[in-house]
Amino acid sequence: MTGTTITAQPGTPFVEVTREFAASREKVLRAHTDPELVARWLGPRGMEMEIIEYDSRSGGSYRYVHRNDRGEFGFRGVFHAVTGERIVQTFEFDGAPGQVSLETATFTDLGGRTRLRSRSVFLTVEARDAAVESGMERGITESYERLDAVLEKGE
Amino acid sequence: MTGTTITAQPGTPFVEVTREFAASREKVLRAHTDPELVARWLGPRGMEMEIIEYDSRSGGSYRYVHRNDRGEFGFRGVFHAVTGERIVQTFEFDGAPGQVSLETATFTDLGGRTRLRSRSVFLTVEARDAAVESGMERGITESYERLDAVLEKGE
Repeated sequence: MTGTTITAQPGTPFVEVTREFAASREKVLRAHTDPELVARWLGPRGMEMEIIEYDSRSGGSYRYVHRNDRGEFGFRGVFHAVTGERIVQTFEFDGAPGQVSLETATFTDLGGRTRLRSRSVFLTVEARDAAVESGMERGITESYERLDAVLEKGE
Repeated sequence: MTGTTITAQPGTPFVEVTREFAASREKVLRAHTDPELVARWLGPRGMEMEIIEYDSRSGGSYRYVHRNDRGEFGFRGVFHAVTGERIVQTFEFDGAPGQVSLETATFTDLGGRTRLRSRSVFLTVEARDAAVESGMERGITESYERLDAVLEKGE
């Protein structure tokens, strides 16, 4: 399994993530758009995941809550565009209201494998730094390990 | 009337705009959320404006087309959040598909006057530069002059 590469160049508001998955693009995309599948991998380990809304069409909205013994963490956003190879969405953590980011994820068909490249941009460099320092890297890495397991089951 | 200040620091993906209007915050906000009013000022002079969709609620979508003798220019996006003092939305020009930006506009009540500060962020510095070079500054400056006229009529 290829590891997750996360790049956050100092002094920029960007976070870039690259990851490969051992499944077709169609399956990797479905794991990002079907709320029942999303609930099984999105977020770090040890979190209970409740999806309140997940309308993964262009113009749709989403909202979900992660819970553990330290508390409840809500996230929300809108899907600007969802196509067969790209998802563009906004993202806001209820704990940092107003610090909205924009994420674009591109899914490339490698013939049975899929390369996912995502690029997030924040409204300020400081907001990007705060997101990275809040454990974003661990959340992404663990999410994608969990997604590997979902995809291994053929879903 | 205070002029429009537009800042695009070299090497960053940001565009910042500051402008004051001689009207209450409620009126300036309504001119941004009521599609009949939006159609009267959004865009540079000399453009015919057709609003196809303008659902300016959190989670709503918008789409409009500007036309002149040089052609047709379509724009679309989603409203991430619309409150009594802030609008956060995505923005995409049909002529630059995939170059989505995120804009947050904050409306500050100055007692009969309103300060609008907006901050847009693009996915890359290059996309920001291309937007600025495409005439973004003229579009913003003329739009806000037209908005002054709409507000002067008491709307």
